[in-house]
Amino acid sequence: MYRIGIDLGGTKIAAALVDEENRIVKKLSVPTDPERGSDCVAENISRLALGLCGEAGVSAGDIPFMGIAAPGAINPETGYIERAHNLMMEHFPIADKVRSLTGIKDIRVENDANAAALGEAVAGAAKGSRYSVMITLGTGVGGGFIIEGKVYSGFNYTGGEFGHMVIRAGGRQCNCGRKGCWEAYSSATALIAMTREAMDGDPGSELHKVAAELGKVSGKTAFIAARRGDATAQKVVDHYIEMLACGIVNVINLLQPDVLSIGGGISNEGDGLMIPLQKQIDREIFIHGIGKSTEIRIAKLGNDAGLIGAANL
Amino acid sequence: MYRIGIDLGGTKIAAALVDEENRIVKKLSVPTDPERGSDCVAENISRLALGLCGEAGVSAGDIPFMGIAAPGAINPETGYIERAHNLMMEHFPIADKVRSLTGIKDIRVENDANAAALGEAVAGAAKGSRYSVMITLGTGVGGGFIIEGKVYSGFNYTGGEFGHMVIRAGGRQCNCGRKGCWEAYSSATALIAMTREAMDGDPGSELHKVAAELGKVSGKTAFIAARRGDATAQKVVDHYIEMLACGIVNVINLLQPDVLSIGGGISNEGDGLMIPLQKQIDREIFIHGIGKSTEIRIAKLGNDAGLIGAANL
Repeated sequence: MYRIGIDLGGTKIAAALVDEENRIVKKLSVPTDPERGSDCVAENISRLALGLCGEAGVSAGDIPFMGIAAPGAINPETGYIERAHNLMMEHFPIADKVRSLTGIKDIRVENDANAAALGEAVAGAAKGSRYSVMITLGTGVGGGFIIEGKVYSGFNYTGGEFGHMVIRAGGRQCNCGRKGCWEAYSSATALIAMTREAMDGDPGSELHKVAAELGKVSGKTAFIAARRGDATAQKVVDHYIEMLACGIVNVINLLQPDVLSIGGGISNEGDGLMIPLQKQIDREIFIHGIGKSTEIRIAKLGNDAGLIGAANL
Repeated sequence: MYRIGIDLGGTKIAAALVDEENRIVKKLSVPTDPERGSDCVAENISRLALGLCGEAGVSAGDIPFMGIAAPGAINPETGYIERAHNLMMEHFPIADKVRSLTGIKDIRVENDANAAALGEAVAGAAKGSRYSVMITLGTGVGGGFIIEGKVYSGFNYTGGEFGHMVIRAGGRQCNCGRKGCWEAYSSATALIAMTREAMDGDPGSELHKVAAELGKVSGKTAFIAARRGDATAQKVVDHYIEMLACGIVNVINLLQPDVLSIGGGISNEGDGLMIPLQKQIDREIFIHGIGKSTEIRIAKLGNDAGLIGAANL
């Protein structure tokens, strides 16, 4: 029995047919075109879903479930996207619209960070765990908290905003209005800003050469220059890892998940990130008497996490 | 049908007979005497429980459940107190011992902060809520997270350590080894330390008079002097409330409980604490699209929270 997972992004909609072992059997995508209106987005999703069915030779009536992962404020209870700036959507009944267009009866919607965390929990880095947290280090710091195969997002479905946990009161300005949010230190955006600040302060740093080679300052710049022995870059990396560990240890002290997985662009640094990060976490972790510690892992599923998570909502 | 709740503290053991409406029908207490050994503590608990049964005219066999709230690292799965400094206990099978001494079959143990949070959830400030958090502002900042009538404490039962969430990286030293923990700003101990620092910096402050009247510097000193118009005291109170709100908003952004209740000595300040606190929370809260916000309430049950929570484990 196949299910369908949809990853609805600002620029593209991806859809996957997922089998009972959570393998992706077939994948399709189309541009989102949000400026053509929300109804048109719902039609695009529906066409993709029916296209997947056609290619797999099943009828939409044979699909018991379809899940949609979407950015912004979602109400999974009503199936509305309440607000999603980059989809230009406000209070839109996406589940109902797609249901009537496809004939698939059971359709649920969830926030994309939560869906990705669910994907990693059921089929990725946290597979087999009872409690897990996924942190995504990208434009922001996204997060999701999974309890026994279900997304936990609180009474109003807006929990799991790990990025907007202040870790340095009065510190760097965050988009949310607060100062010192984890996101303002540990997102790729923050790393790029801190790399630029370090470059401004040290015109002779290797950072400038690396940036010229890459054609831009990115989340990789400081890691590459640090590996070449540049002290200024190493400082940027050390500070980045220190603040990342600070937020992770906070999450562990509160939630003690079996597994905390890290996704997003920065996680591609692999051991260069994970080895010093684990050392810093071990230094800070709250000592307790029962002796089991949360495992920190790199997320496994990449962009498929949202699709597989959506199919498991 | 009565249940028994035990609150096992470092100096005294309290026991309560709790009815089906979570009312305390009878309460007894004895000194803990931890220096006489863990077996003796188990005997004290058992004698109290049997004493309660005797006074209520029921036999221990008619008590379907007894819960024990204890400080330190607890393993609710095995019924062991793994480590509790002020009970001088290490890896002690408290549930088994008390079971064999009383004949009460179903006995569970839980951390005291978690039990208090459960008490407030089932019978106190968070009654009727699906998700709730209780924060206790005392010697430390204790906390408990309740999901649908059950304590959430993660895979190793040590979650809910809200006090050891860093809110100002590199800030005030915490007992746990980290710097800038919420507890280092928002516990009564921290408020007293910050009040003392302000007194050292301002010999003419009303704080000195209030401290002399109270016979000591306490968690009340700054609140009283601020009400009398002292600017130095007001600064202490403002900073205290700012940091308290910071931690609370972090908890809300992560967990979005229906209710977050505040207990412990500082919560006795009532409106003097709650009105400016709510204002600061409203300023910082993450804006979302669904429009329901966590209610912040003062805990209702005082010292009975642990007893009632224990009876509901």
